[in-house]
Amino acid sequence: MHLGVCYYPEHWPEERWAEDARQMREIGLTRVRIGEFAWSRIEPEPGQYDWDWLDRAVEILHSAGLGIIMGTPTATPPKWLVDSMPDMLAIDREGQPRGFGSRRHYCFSHEGYGEEARRITRVVAQRYGQHPGVVGWQTDNEFGCHDTVQSFSPAARDAFRRWLAELYGSVATLNEAWGNVFWSMEYRSFDEIELPNQTVTEANPAHWLAFRRFSSDKVIRFNRAQVEILREASPGRDIMHNAMGFYTGYDHHDLAQDLDVLGWDSYPLGFLEMFRFTEEEKRDFARQGHPDIAAFHHDLYRGCAKDGRWNVLEQQPGPVNWARYNPAPLPGMVRLWTLEAFAHGAEMVSYFRWRQFPKAQEQMHAGLLRPDGEPVPAYAEAASAGREIADLGAVGEAPKHVALIFSYDSEWITQIQPQGEGRSALWAAFSAYSSLRRLGLNVDIVPPETELDGYSLVVVPCLPVMTEGLADALKRFDGQILVGPRTATRDTDFAIPGGLVDQDFADLIGGKIVRSESLSDRLQMTGDGWTAKGWLDHYEGEAEPEFVAGSGEACSYRHRNLRLCCTWPEGSMFERLVERAASDAGLPHEALPKGIRYRTCGSTRFTFDYLTAQISFD
Amino acid sequence: MHLGVCYYPEHWPEERWAEDARQMREIGLTRVRIGEFAWSRIEPEPGQYDWDWLDRAVEILHSAGLGIIMGTPTATPPKWLVDSMPDMLAIDREGQPRGFGSRRHYCFSHEGYGEEARRITRVVAQRYGQHPGVVGWQTDNEFGCHDTVQSFSPAARDAFRRWLAELYGSVATLNEAWGNVFWSMEYRSFDEIELPNQTVTEANPAHWLAFRRFSSDKVIRFNRAQVEILREASPGRDIMHNAMGFYTGYDHHDLAQDLDVLGWDSYPLGFLEMFRFTEEEKRDFARQGHPDIAAFHHDLYRGCAKDGRWNVLEQQPGPVNWARYNPAPLPGMVRLWTLEAFAHGAEMVSYFRWRQFPKAQEQMHAGLLRPDGEPVPAYAEAASAGREIADLGAVGEAPKHVALIFSYDSEWITQIQPQGEGRSALWAAFSAYSSLRRLGLNVDIVPPETELDGYSLVVVPCLPVMTEGLADALKRFDGQILVGPRTATRDTDFAIPGGLVDQDFADLIGGKIVRSESLSDRLQMTGDGWTAKGWLDHYEGEAEPEFVAGSGEACSYRHRNLRLCCTWPEGSMFERLVERAASDAGLPHEALPKGIRYRTCGSTRFTFDYLTAQISFD
Amino acid sequence: MHLGVCYYPEHWPEERWAEDARQMREIGLTRVRIGEFAWSRIEPEPGQYDWDWLDRAVEILHSAGLGIIMGTPTATPPKWLVDSMPDMLAIDREGQPRGFGSRRHYCFSHEGYGEEARRITRVVAQRYGQHPGVVGWQTDNEFGCHDTVQSFSPAARDAFRRWLAELYGSVATLNEAWGNVFWSMEYRSFDEIELPNQTVTEANPAHWLAFRRFSSDKVIRFNRAQVEILREASPGRDIMHNAMGFYTGYDHHDLAQDLDVLGWDSYPLGFLEMFRFTEEEKRDFARQGHPDIAAFHHDLYRGCAKDGRWNVLEQQPGPVNWARYNPAPLPGMVRLWTLEAFAHGAEMVSYFRWRQFPKAQEQMHAGLLRPDGEPVPAYAEAASAGREIADLGAVGEAPKHVALIFSYDSEWITQIQPQGEGRSALWAAFSAYSSLRRLGLNVDIVPPETELDGYSLVVVPCLPVMTEGLADALKRFDGQILVGPRTATRDTDFAIPGGLVDQDFADLIGGKIVRSESLSDRLQMTGDGWTAKGWLDHYEGEAEPEFVAGSGEACSYRHRNLRLCCTWPEGSMFERLVERAASDAGLPHEALPKGIRYRTCGSTRFTFDYLTAQISFD
Ligand SMILES: [Zn+2]
Ligand SMILES: [Zn+2]
Ligand SMILES: [Zn+2]
Repeated sequence: MHLGVCYYPEHWPEERWAEDARQMREIGLTRVRIGEFAWSRIEPEPGQYDWDWLDRAVEILHSAGLGIIMGTPTATPPKWLVDSMPDMLAIDREGQPRGFGSRRHYCFSHEGYGEEARRITRVVAQRYGQHPGVVGWQTDNEFGCHDTVQSFSPAARDAFRRWLAELYGSVATLNEAWGNVFWSMEYRSFDEIELPNQTVTEANPAHWLAFRRFSSDKVIRFNRAQVEILREASPGRDIMHNAMGFYTGYDHHDLAQDLDVLGWDSYPLGFLEMFRFTEEEKRDFARQGHPDIAAFHHDLYRGCAKDGRWNVLEQQPGPVNWARYNPAPLPGMVRLWTLEAFAHGAEMVSYFRWRQFPKAQEQMHAGLLRPDGEPVPAYAEAASAGREIADLGAVGEAPKHVALIFSYDSEWITQIQPQGEGRSALWAAFSAYSSLRRLGLNVDIVPPETELDGYSLVVVPCLPVMTEGLADALKRFDGQILVGPRTATRDTDFAIPGGLVDQDFADLIGGKIVRSESLSDRLQMTGDGWTAKGWLDHYEGEAEPEFVAGSGEACSYRHRNLRLCCTWPEGSMFERLVERAASDAGLPHEALPKGIRYRTCGSTRFTFDYLTAQISFD
Repeated sequence: MHLGVCYYPEHWPEERWAEDARQMREIGLTRVRIGEFAWSRIEPEPGQYDWDWLDRAVEILHSAGLGIIMGTPTATPPKWLVDSMPDMLAIDREGQPRGFGSRRHYCFSHEGYGEEARRITRVVAQRYGQHPGVVGWQTDNEFGCHDTVQSFSPAARDAFRRWLAELYGSVATLNEAWGNVFWSMEYRSFDEIELPNQTVTEANPAHWLAFRRFSSDKVIRFNRAQVEILREASPGRDIMHNAMGFYTGYDHHDLAQDLDVLGWDSYPLGFLEMFRFTEEEKRDFARQGHPDIAAFHHDLYRGCAKDGRWNVLEQQPGPVNWARYNPAPLPGMVRLWTLEAFAHGAEMVSYFRWRQFPKAQEQMHAGLLRPDGEPVPAYAEAASAGREIADLGAVGEAPKHVALIFSYDSEWITQIQPQGEGRSALWAAFSAYSSLRRLGLNVDIVPPETELDGYSLVVVPCLPVMTEGLADALKRFDGQILVGPRTATRDTDFAIPGGLVDQDFADLIGGKIVRSESLSDRLQMTGDGWTAKGWLDHYEGEAEPEFVAGSGEACSYRHRNLRLCCTWPEGSMFERLVERAASDAGLPHEALPKGIRYRTCGSTRFTFDYLTAQISFD
Repeated sequence: MHLGVCYYPEHWPEERWAEDARQMREIGLTRVRIGEFAWSRIEPEPGQYDWDWLDRAVEILHSAGLGIIMGTPTATPPKWLVDSMPDMLAIDREGQPRGFGSRRHYCFSHEGYGEEARRITRVVAQRYGQHPGVVGWQTDNEFGCHDTVQSFSPAARDAFRRWLAELYGSVATLNEAWGNVFWSMEYRSFDEIELPNQTVTEANPAHWLAFRRFSSDKVIRFNRAQVEILREASPGRDIMHNAMGFYTGYDHHDLAQDLDVLGWDSYPLGFLEMFRFTEEEKRDFARQGHPDIAAFHHDLYRGCAKDGRWNVLEQQPGPVNWARYNPAPLPGMVRLWTLEAFAHGAEMVSYFRWRQFPKAQEQMHAGLLRPDGEPVPAYAEAASAGREIADLGAVGEAPKHVALIFSYDSEWITQIQPQGEGRSALWAAFSAYSSLRRLGLNVDIVPPETELDGYSLVVVPCLPVMTEGLADALKRFDGQILVGPRTATRDTDFAIPGGLVDQDFADLIGGKIVRSESLSDRLQMTGDGWTAKGWLDHYEGEAEPEFVAGSGEACSYRHRNLRLCCTWPEGSMFERLVERAASDAGLPHEALPKGIRYRTCGSTRFTFDYLTAQISFD
């Protein structure tokens, strides 16, 4: 269990480094992340490396007793590199190049840049791979940040064609799978296929889904190439990457398979302000973040991580600079976020960043120190959290209550074809997760392939693509099951199955979904004390209706140990469904007051009060 | 009187075709529209035609007793054709090509594609033109869908210059007509004229109007070229095209002159959700559509059609996939929409489509059959409507009550220069139409050239360009006249007339409009129990003020048999004007309850209840 | 003291010119602005000048006794000129050329166009520079209108690199100043620097600030080149330019240094509708404009003007055509605006325009005459205002009450980095100005270099870049000082100073701002009868908290004669601060009723009632 911090020695005079390291240790930090944006300092001219400064920085940090997590600097290739191959820039959806002057200015499909990225990774890995101070590596930085997974470049087009040829074998197979007979979109060869942007109206959703999978694959391969180099040059060190919040541009389950530890960057206040929370939530939790934001990602990324090893590679210690409005955390929140991460199993929480840099894009992004080197309020909170974590010792294993199933494929499908504005699988997952957490339950957010033994309740909020593994596991599962709308209604090529839903799923629900409606919030269905809205799957089969609206719509059904929610998984009817499922599953639960959340580990129950920023254990 | 359906045999196994045909007949369908997106199946390789499958499909449908409406497949040229002439793609307003991958990916000004479109039309027409099963033709599909009338390509620019040269003769004439001395926009030759997109601020409105007329003309000519081929190769068959709802991208009066029957595609739920209805209307009529949507278009396109022959070429039978939210029709609505179309004089209603295709862009667009081949609720409603129509027999002629004048030219002017946000002639027409219909009146929406004899009331909601024919007709007209704002305030080149309004119109209103204001909804004018808003034309002349606001503004005037509405034609003052005009015209009328509408044909009065989806006749 | 009008003889038959001139004189106009869009008439073919018509127009106007302000026609280069050098077009932020077809279609960095602009200026200046009728010149027209200051062309890029090289000397200096080590943005030479548009995420704010200063400089130089030609060819005439409302695209303080008189174009109704006023203000003042719009600009541009000489080069006399909604002024408002301008020290008010042109882009933009040549209501109001001004004689000097400090640099910084949506220095200035005016005070809006002697109160609403001159002046100042958020928190290269705030400023406030939060309006801080919101600067130092919220936040501090407002300078707490500062400054003041404003000149107090459009003096 470690606390760490992100640090940029290149931003500060060398004279200050030792004092910085000393202070880090003083407040209990044991890890320091460095180097991930330093390419222009490591290689100021093509092929001319300047290791001196970094050697000294590594030495100073190491001597102070800090374990170093070194970043590969591939998110910020220097200008001379871009000028040597200008077509390495990604092309945006409107056909414009995404130029130099910030970061992430590269196309994942560009082979020349891929080679350069491996070269710089190799030289850095060779220089520091065996250094005793280096305990881990971070590949690149926040893959996909600023919408950078997809590129519509000639390189991407050519690679996409090759990827499709490999996947489908023959273009006839692709035409059939995508239904290209529709609108005469049939191709005679893979070389006729274009990227799906800039079509007159929307492209074939199967075309988009393939492109999203291809784009995700390019990220996985880009990362893997670095991982392979690092494994060889730096044996025994943990390799990690920092994922982001509410971000689904690539398949994190896939990426995590190549990593030792999956990290993520936790900015609860920024996320609250930027994403789809209600006005009331944005007001009441402006300085805390919604009580489920951090935990949702903890539980999601733990579920993605290969062996369940995960951490927080960046933790907000003060205001950030990138949300619509950027308030400061309530006193106590930095401590609360830190302890909550550990309660959910984090191996490390690393604050971003040590000291606020007074220049450039993030000059308004707070650190533990102010630009003038003085501590901010979070400084003492970090120190306190460190002491408390040490006192607590290892937290016990969390009892398995609920498995919540989420897949990136399914999210892409709902993004490509929401059918009703804003109906996305990710947000269905968040809403379902929040309902479960408000009952005090532990929730694991897991991919469809997960072993379900030991759980009492499985919730599938919205999963258009059912996998054979999950269908089988659900059939075998003897706890309670709660399934939401759109589930099992697409095959892997984005087609509606012949039987309207996946056959195994039809068995599970004793019938099928025969028609779906998306509904605006104007059209609410109401029953005795509840409302439901947003969607309506029409079911036919042998299941029994459970919640039926006064206007006649059956909003949910029950079949054996399974409940089917036909409306969007949010609102009071859905909360009742969740409560009934938890009861039937024999899970002890209670309706928690506003802002209160639990996390149970071994015999300890953590209670987090998001309204007052208090924590208690018992 | 026919019911029909849109069918895509190429989507389904050949074994199923006969059964599909049998079922169609079983529920009373007698027409089937096919072929309009099948180019890649008809001509899979350049110049190599595959007629076999289509021959068999035609034969099977014909044998079953279905009359076939064959589409020309020019809305979906295959990829090999696009690759052979990439500059056939339209260019969007921002200068980007509109690529392959959906439909309508062609520029109407591209001569090479024009030739290819005529070629494919000719071979299809030659193959099936004399087939006894073929009873009609549809040209292309939904001209203008996805904003495809305007293209900003080099081909369009060159054609526009030629078009202008032909229209104006000399560039000096054009400079004078457009007022190009303003801002030194004078041209020395037609070759100096650019397209009006991508100017620094708005281009000359006369420039835009000319470009819109040119673009419309290109559509008319594209269609006419197909019509000429079809007339020659397929004598005696009705040629039609399917217009869209709330769409004014080309002049439908012009287009209809080349057609035998003007069709349109009726999607009341999608239109309600996507267009400018109130929140209350979107809630109360979410599953029905606003009670005037379908009828407005019936009465509009009947007025456009050459001999008043029109039909519904596509009728929504369930949820669609393209609106913000896509609910299902209330039980009874598909029957109601069908009967309402006949009450308004449709020759046919054709459902879109027979069976929902489980792949590609419209996989969530319902048909009469589900993807698994089972019927949806609308299936039985179609069958019932068919029986009822047969029972009813020919409906009597509708008595002429109100002529409502609308012109595409005028709509373009208000789009190019709304002066106040959202002040468009089309929506003025809709609002006026709705006010008239809520009094139970029959309304014909007609172009300015229409003979007005037999009407009791003429309403001109907003017609910036007065035609000499209309002015003369209004002078002769001895019924009541109600005229709305902006009328007769522009000449055909978008200039304000020397006398501020058209001289004939000045005679009619006994004065002139001397100043116009556009007003936000914040600034309402109120009188005794009424409000008026949105616009204020200041009138000077001998007419008498009729409605005068408490704050002093004269909101309407009366002069002989004419009422002049100076505010936007909506709201309670306008409703009173309409009611007074109807009274003075001697038209029996009544204030209908919410959701109720009438249509009177001969001695029959149809009553449609949009709240309950009920219909009655008496 | 003059009244004038903008006139376009080229729009009207020559026979009408003399009558127009006579009428102008008849209603008391003595100035006429002409020629600024007439390039295509002056030089219809390259190098072939047609002076005849303009000679005659000048003669007729002069003979009638009108002093002519001649415009250089460089805002509207003709098509033949653009075709001769197509790369003179500006490039927009998305990389698209901004084409011919309206106006301002040129890039300020294009040297070829710069030469052409000087050429046409020279020939016009040589022709009319010594004409006795020509009393003044206007350069170009509304620099920056339609967002035309910035161009992202190759010409701009090259010029920007040269500009940076000159400013920074070495690229290492630039890298250090901008903090380019962050994200490896370091350059090896000035030729590696790109324009800041089209980066993946936001460019370095220092990069943007430099580009904005460069772009502003290009405008200043473009203008100066014309001024130099005019001074030489037309000695003794006033040279002016017309600035716009709420526009900050270039540094008006800089521009004004090259001019004799700074003009501005006053459209109170359009500005109210288009800018960030509340719904209530937009309703209550729809026909008047917000009571502070015109005065704010009068006082701002008077403060920009070299010797305080300024005028209104365009005054709205009726509805315009470019706002979302375009109502007509309340009767009396044209007179009120005219007199208010004189009360604030204008040398001239020139109505835009004489007669509404019935064609082209501004056909809905009213003049003093309608398109048919008849007068509009403002015609008589202008005549009346002229008589009243003559009766009044010279107004006395306005007593100095409040100096309000504003700089364009600071506005650019808050635009580039608002940190919280909509937090801009310009709107902070407007809000502070309005609070002061509602107390009946005279306000001078002045640049930071201004001499503060004679003022009783200095207000600095939001000034991120403190200048040494201002800091010194504030230290010496013995009146009251009120300072708003973000002040003195950046150096001139957009970096946070080492001491977090400018050192001199730290002395002034007895401490420093150690952390800043931007807050959404959901998060209001409330005290006893007041609220504060929008921002929170956390202060540390020896100042005393003055307003402290119930929730504990110190919203303002007091230190000696200085008050520090830590929240956004608007709302009820800020109003109390202003009132206390005015009291402590010994300024007589009162809370004016809604819509009432004062202007005190010598012994005269003008009272303007914006609700009723009345004026009184005493
Ligand atoms: Zn990021
Ligand atoms: Zn369509
Ligand atoms: Zn302007």
